[in-house]
Amino acid sequence: MAYFNNIAPIQYEGTKTKNMFAFRHYNPEEVVLGKTMEEHLHFALAFWHTITMDGADPFGSATMERPWDLEGGTELEIAHRRVDAFFEIAEKLGVKYYCFHDVDIAPQGKSLKEFYANLDEITDHLLEKQKETGIKLLWNTANMFSNPRYMNGVSTSNRAEVFAYGAAQVKKGLELSKKLGGENYVFWGGREGYESLLNTDMALEMDHMAKFFHMAVDYAKSMDHLPVFLIEPKPKEPMTHQYDYDAATAMAFLQKYDLTDYFKLNLETNHAWLAGHTFEHELNTARSFNALGSIDANQGNYLLGWDTDEFPTLVIDITLAMHQILLNGGLGKGGINFDAKVRRTSFKAEDLLLAHIAGMDTYARALKGAAAIVEDKFLSDIVAERYASYKNTEVGQSIENGTATFETLAAFALEHGDDIELDSNHLEHVKSVLNDYLV
Amino acid sequence: MAYFNNIAPIQYEGTKTKNMFAFRHYNPEEVVLGKTMEEHLHFALAFWHTITMDGADPFGSATMERPWDLEGGTELEIAHRRVDAFFEIAEKLGVKYYCFHDVDIAPQGKSLKEFYANLDEITDHLLEKQKETGIKLLWNTANMFSNPRYMNGVSTSNRAEVFAYGAAQVKKGLELSKKLGGENYVFWGGREGYESLLNTDMALEMDHMAKFFHMAVDYAKSMDHLPVFLIEPKPKEPMTHQYDYDAATAMAFLQKYDLTDYFKLNLETNHAWLAGHTFEHELNTARSFNALGSIDANQGNYLLGWDTDEFPTLVIDITLAMHQILLNGGLGKGGINFDAKVRRTSFKAEDLLLAHIAGMDTYARALKGAAAIVEDKFLSDIVAERYASYKNTEVGQSIENGTATFETLAAFALEHGDDIELDSNHLEHVKSVLNDYLV
Amino acid sequence: MAYFNNIAPIQYEGTKTKNMFAFRHYNPEEVVLGKTMEEHLHFALAFWHTITMDGADPFGSATMERPWDLEGGTELEIAHRRVDAFFEIAEKLGVKYYCFHDVDIAPQGKSLKEFYANLDEITDHLLEKQKETGIKLLWNTANMFSNPRYMNGVSTSNRAEVFAYGAAQVKKGLELSKKLGGENYVFWGGREGYESLLNTDMALEMDHMAKFFHMAVDYAKSMDHLPVFLIEPKPKEPMTHQYDYDAATAMAFLQKYDLTDYFKLNLETNHAWLAGHTFEHELNTARSFNALGSIDANQGNYLLGWDTDEFPTLVIDITLAMHQILLNGGLGKGGINFDAKVRRTSFKAEDLLLAHIAGMDTYARALKGAAAIVEDKFLSDIVAERYASYKNTEVGQSIENGTATFETLAAFALEHGDDIELDSNHLEHVKSVLNDYLV
Amino acid sequence: MAYFNNIAPIQYEGTKTKNMFAFRHYNPEEVVLGKTMEEHLHFALAFWHTITMDGADPFGSATMERPWDLEGGTELEIAHRRVDAFFEIAEKLGVKYYCFHDVDIAPQGKSLKEFYANLDEITDHLLEKQKETGIKLLWNTANMFSNPRYMNGVSTSNRAEVFAYGAAQVKKGLELSKKLGGENYVFWGGREGYESLLNTDMALEMDHMAKFFHMAVDYAKSMDHLPVFLIEPKPKEPMTHQYDYDAATAMAFLQKYDLTDYFKLNLETNHAWLAGHTFEHELNTARSFNALGSIDANQGNYLLGWDTDEFPTLVIDITLAMHQILLNGGLGKGGINFDAKVRRTSFKAEDLLLAHIAGMDTYARALKGAAAIVEDKFLSDIVAERYASYKNTEVGQSIENGTATFETLAAFALEHGDDIELDSNHLEHVKSVLNDYLV
Repeated sequence: MAYFNNIAPIQYEGTKTKNMFAFRHYNPEEVVLGKTMEEHLHFALAFWHTITMDGADPFGSATMERPWDLEGGTELEIAHRRVDAFFEIAEKLGVKYYCFHDVDIAPQGKSLKEFYANLDEITDHLLEKQKETGIKLLWNTANMFSNPRYMNGVSTSNRAEVFAYGAAQVKKGLELSKKLGGENYVFWGGREGYESLLNTDMALEMDHMAKFFHMAVDYAKSMDHLPVFLIEPKPKEPMTHQYDYDAATAMAFLQKYDLTDYFKLNLETNHAWLAGHTFEHELNTARSFNALGSIDANQGNYLLGWDTDEFPTLVIDITLAMHQILLNGGLGKGGINFDAKVRRTSFKAEDLLLAHIAGMDTYARALKGAAAIVEDKFLSDIVAERYASYKNTEVGQSIENGTATFETLAAFALEHGDDIELDSNHLEHVKSVLNDYLV
Repeated sequence: MAYFNNIAPIQYEGTKTKNMFAFRHYNPEEVVLGKTMEEHLHFALAFWHTITMDGADPFGSATMERPWDLEGGTELEIAHRRVDAFFEIAEKLGVKYYCFHDVDIAPQGKSLKEFYANLDEITDHLLEKQKETGIKLLWNTANMFSNPRYMNGVSTSNRAEVFAYGAAQVKKGLELSKKLGGENYVFWGGREGYESLLNTDMALEMDHMAKFFHMAVDYAKSMDHLPVFLIEPKPKEPMTHQYDYDAATAMAFLQKYDLTDYFKLNLETNHAWLAGHTFEHELNTARSFNALGSIDANQGNYLLGWDTDEFPTLVIDITLAMHQILLNGGLGKGGINFDAKVRRTSFKAEDLLLAHIAGMDTYARALKGAAAIVEDKFLSDIVAERYASYKNTEVGQSIENGTATFETLAAFALEHGDDIELDSNHLEHVKSVLNDYLV
Repeated sequence: MAYFNNIAPIQYEGTKTKNMFAFRHYNPEEVVLGKTMEEHLHFALAFWHTITMDGADPFGSATMERPWDLEGGTELEIAHRRVDAFFEIAEKLGVKYYCFHDVDIAPQGKSLKEFYANLDEITDHLLEKQKETGIKLLWNTANMFSNPRYMNGVSTSNRAEVFAYGAAQVKKGLELSKKLGGENYVFWGGREGYESLLNTDMALEMDHMAKFFHMAVDYAKSMDHLPVFLIEPKPKEPMTHQYDYDAATAMAFLQKYDLTDYFKLNLETNHAWLAGHTFEHELNTARSFNALGSIDANQGNYLLGWDTDEFPTLVIDITLAMHQILLNGGLGKGGINFDAKVRRTSFKAEDLLLAHIAGMDTYARALKGAAAIVEDKFLSDIVAERYASYKNTEVGQSIENGTATFETLAAFALEHGDDIELDSNHLEHVKSVLNDYLV
Repeated sequence: MAYFNNIAPIQYEGTKTKNMFAFRHYNPEEVVLGKTMEEHLHFALAFWHTITMDGADPFGSATMERPWDLEGGTELEIAHRRVDAFFEIAEKLGVKYYCFHDVDIAPQGKSLKEFYANLDEITDHLLEKQKETGIKLLWNTANMFSNPRYMNGVSTSNRAEVFAYGAAQVKKGLELSKKLGGENYVFWGGREGYESLLNTDMALEMDHMAKFFHMAVDYAKSMDHLPVFLIEPKPKEPMTHQYDYDAATAMAFLQKYDLTDYFKLNLETNHAWLAGHTFEHELNTARSFNALGSIDANQGNYLLGWDTDEFPTLVIDITLAMHQILLNGGLGKGGINFDAKVRRTSFKAEDLLLAHIAGMDTYARALKGAAAIVEDKFLSDIVAERYASYKNTEVGQSIENGTATFETLAAFALEHGDDIELDSNHLEHVKSVLNDYLV
């Protein structure tokens, strides 16, 4: 059973190629800054957008042609075929990691018990495929936003019974994480937020969310399998306000509830933009809290106000993101998960390959560009020079070493402050030279 | 010397009046929820928007007619007249508090030393007027964004000399706070942020900002005058990104740098909107961190992307804000400062009165509406009922009292989870009834 | 067969009522400005949001409890029950008009032919219900955006076959309009726009759209049934750019292609906001082109970037909209169609009643407030006074009567222009008094 | 008198150069698509942003170091030095066109008469410099937004006297256009719009604006100097709503008032973004109305809501804009005017050179990229193939040639419509290949 037999192995062929099914920039073995591209870019395939996303949108029905769904059979039979198709795509692309929500891989059945059983069966299949292919689980998560029971959230639901149901889903998720060797476990707070403040006790809901997370930590410890927990910030949609609004908001929460030892951030480009930030800003914010865990690779549209989850092709944005990742020394146990969906009009099965090639090539371009920025010290020299006064002057050193007080600084300012000469930032020039690093 | 002699005392006359210079809703002595309106609403007059704002905008020059500026004389003579005019307006309106930036009240002169001297002279005048009128200083602050030296920020400037100069300004500001009996001291991070991440070391800049704040605390302690320090979040403008983006971002910072004992938030309506939040959201967020300090009363325009600082007249928004303030038990030492400017086309001196009357009436309407919501338990009953399961059910109680674990909750969900019956939120009905509370 | 037997007749009871199923403001027989509320407010019920909307959103599945769908049977049997339920709701609410898309009322079947037959059968039923109840068809339309064939638009599709299919749908739609006595026919350009300019010939697509509209006019004329054609502007979503972006954009198109004799605008609140406009702006723009046809009543959320289609409850916005409608002398053959959906969390069938009551009450408040503004000449006096110089001065009259030229005006300016004295707009005061008109 | 003697001639040196004062891509003599870069790119220097912009923003005062302003003397003496400095910069950069507002070049004096005289004197100087350097006037315009008299607009002011004053300014502007051989004359409707609809008669104001434009045409004809009149759309700022919102809105107006024979559009990148459009969208819209006149080259920040007027450096956006310009066969009498200001932190005089080099290089990159797209038929082939059905099928031809009716199309759809097979757009692949065209 193979769905893409007609497509030759996808390899690096460069920009001159007319072969649509070839990488123009991604060459897994090419060495950049002392590591191969594959080592730099832990690409992961997202089960939901690859396999189960059907192309429906709020104004239209499903468009996607997915041969693995058309051969009939029971829900479980389809689920098994989907696993095969998923790994076929991952192998075709040379992607070494994957991610999934529980509901992506297995039918929910008529009861939680049945769902558990289905998950057990399908994860046996996943485990087998992992062994067969060497592909690893980057992270899994629980979909706790699609089912009507979660209409008001999970841990922030107004109903204790729903909180409990969510706990049961995450408990199972952690067990599957252990079974499959997942190194991270993600919480995207799908409906953790509010639709309206009028009927919401926000402080109570955030207390509950913290309790939930602590229970997750406790359970993971009890199992002797403690993955990196990742919060995925998003400002809004579906809720009017999502509690994990952006990186800084998530860090305010994690600090307040003493969760920083266990939780890092899984940052997504499109979510950053919806929150009014560049992606590099969010990555930098996470770095400043030592909390950059993993990323969801995609992009939105700066002029649209919803989550379009497009495959990343904006080179300038992704280059600046990769620059932050290089400054971070990579993503550690994290990776680059394509949380991106093909457009509703890219409805052929082969578009799944084309779109991932586009996304991987964009990250490859970005890696090469960001690496050159680092090698040339293009930006680091600018930064070093701009802040030199904190190293080279007495007053600057006194600030850095903690001996300065308002009294000493005011004395300095009274004597020298009226003659400060500033330097131009020459930002227009900097931005023009930056363009030389776009690959 | 009086500029508004032709205008009779401004009093409450109700909505039937045709007198423009009368309150339609604000009646300082009217009792609401057991306190007078004046006790509830600590209105404050902002020196800058009242006295020195000239009506210029990025596309046009000054329009304001300000008689106190037209009589000539030295800069200091004008500054003294401005103080008189300011207190005349405050008394005319019956406003009992005021706020200022250092540069609003005194000319900066040719040196820091001269600026200090001017500040000393004018604050003598302010102190005299305070005693004469009983009007108090709600807060003062330092303008550290208008002078070119601050083009890259103050404590987050790339230049240590600028950091020092800012320290000298805030040091003096704290001394003036002590002299004038100010109960709060505000930091609006005018240019504390970045223009571009390309040349910015964000983590270093935030470390510096924290050092600066700790120095301020130390100096205030050393003087034996520790006002409530207030951070005023704003997401952008003038900088591309301001470090105090919104309430949650400010709290992430304050927690990270161990500053929560000394700092609360001064929240502004227009800044909330620019950050993508309702004002009531920001107030609620601050409350959830026990950090609601004071507010800057104004409003923006939901369809415009910059800070318009309009006088507040949107009753629905302000009613929901007042509701949060009532839930907070008031603003403590904080107040309601009109950080609002008359439109460029409201250029007559009398518009200063009309605009404040409009703003005060809006807050009076809002107070009356919010008080009725509280008295009727309109929203509190809805909230109590929605979350009842956390009190009335065993599983809910186990979550609240900390005995629940993922194991106990999963066991519950396996047994009972498949049959959860939710209630409708009836939000459309709630919003319709809410309209009955708009005064 | 009745679904709401347990609910008593819904009548005007005023704001004191605790009965959720009562009007707080809408009293159909109450006279305002010489007409009854019912005559002013041609409320219409939308079939799609009332009957077939299921509560699914991009992140979650259906939540709505709809008893008429649960009794089983063939698709056609369900369709018949839906008609009954729909008219029951309309009657319960006292709404006298309705609107539908073709696909709302009848199953599409396996072929266009089957769809035609289903439409014929169901419209027989609708016609019967119209006669029985006196309820009339405000407008119908064709859903040409949900089916995958329309993924690239209809008349602006890149495929001629799709253009033809759309023609067949609208042809039938016009025939049904004649059969049911519809006075308007609506085009909402669901996917008439582009996903990306990269693969789009925008000028060609707009030529095609114009051809399509001319064919519609021709066919309507040939049938001797020429309803008012209504374009419904929307800026984006689902497409990146929709060709009918806003009222002005639609008018640019209609003028270019000589369609203004046949087409007016159907304006929607939420669409206005997404385009960056207030609703009253869009209404005023349409009026200035003599093209205000009808409205889709709803509201969005100023802080969200997608179409939330909420029931209108923001009194200030709707009052200013109703003011424009009164200035227009009403909506002529148009009406106020609730293109609004209950929240996903208002999933009970009874919420359909509650939400429409909320919306109708909001429009009733708005009508009463706007009528008072008109009666008091509150805004009209301000406007008359502001522009008086065009009536009261010679130079103004010369501009109005066409005798002025640049020479005469420059001569005037050279003599008198240096001394122009302007008046303050006192906008803050105006906005404060406006609040007295919020009902 | 020369301000940049220390800077060597600015020439093309390529991306390897470390010389900041060199072009990295712009080579005026390099041939692209059969024309030199200089012929393609009619670069123009804007007097206001180059010479008089002082770096003030709403939160801070002037920062710019401008030696020509520091040598003292009368306002007129300064004005003359500014002319010299301006032409020195233009020559240094090799820019062959320029643009100005009346108030940029000459002091307004105490009366209109004095202003006229100053304009006469300074334009003598400009004319002399034109002859000396061969640099030409691309367009001039009147600044009718900065002076307080224009607070409510000019032709859309509520005051006839202000309308007259504006007429006097434009009359003079047209005379100067004739004197200096300007080929275009621009109207940017600075305050032509409304601050609030509450006190505005929008239809009357637009009638007045049309009268004003017709008078301008009449006067230009009477002088025998009819430049291309250009409207410059902007959606908002400073006004809440500007009447020339975007290209489509401007075209609705021009058609309504029969002005399309005389007026085209001057489109600006940043204004497009503020209106919610890409720049290429606005250019394409103008093309579809045969109204693309000229462009204001700059860029904004997609995440900020105000006009930042940055120098263009975003290669992807400008490449797609240049592609539209190439499809238009160039800009005719129009050009590429840098309506861009150096950042407040790029305050050195030399930054004026650096920033223009950055902008010119960006347009040079864009030209090279767009030319390659055209030469390779990369996008034109995609478009041709997508719409082929309108040429290759009978039903498509019948639509194009006007023989199709709803009857013929419905007949076609009934027979063939149920089996339409669509093609994937493969947009992800298209966007990935597009990146190969980024220079």
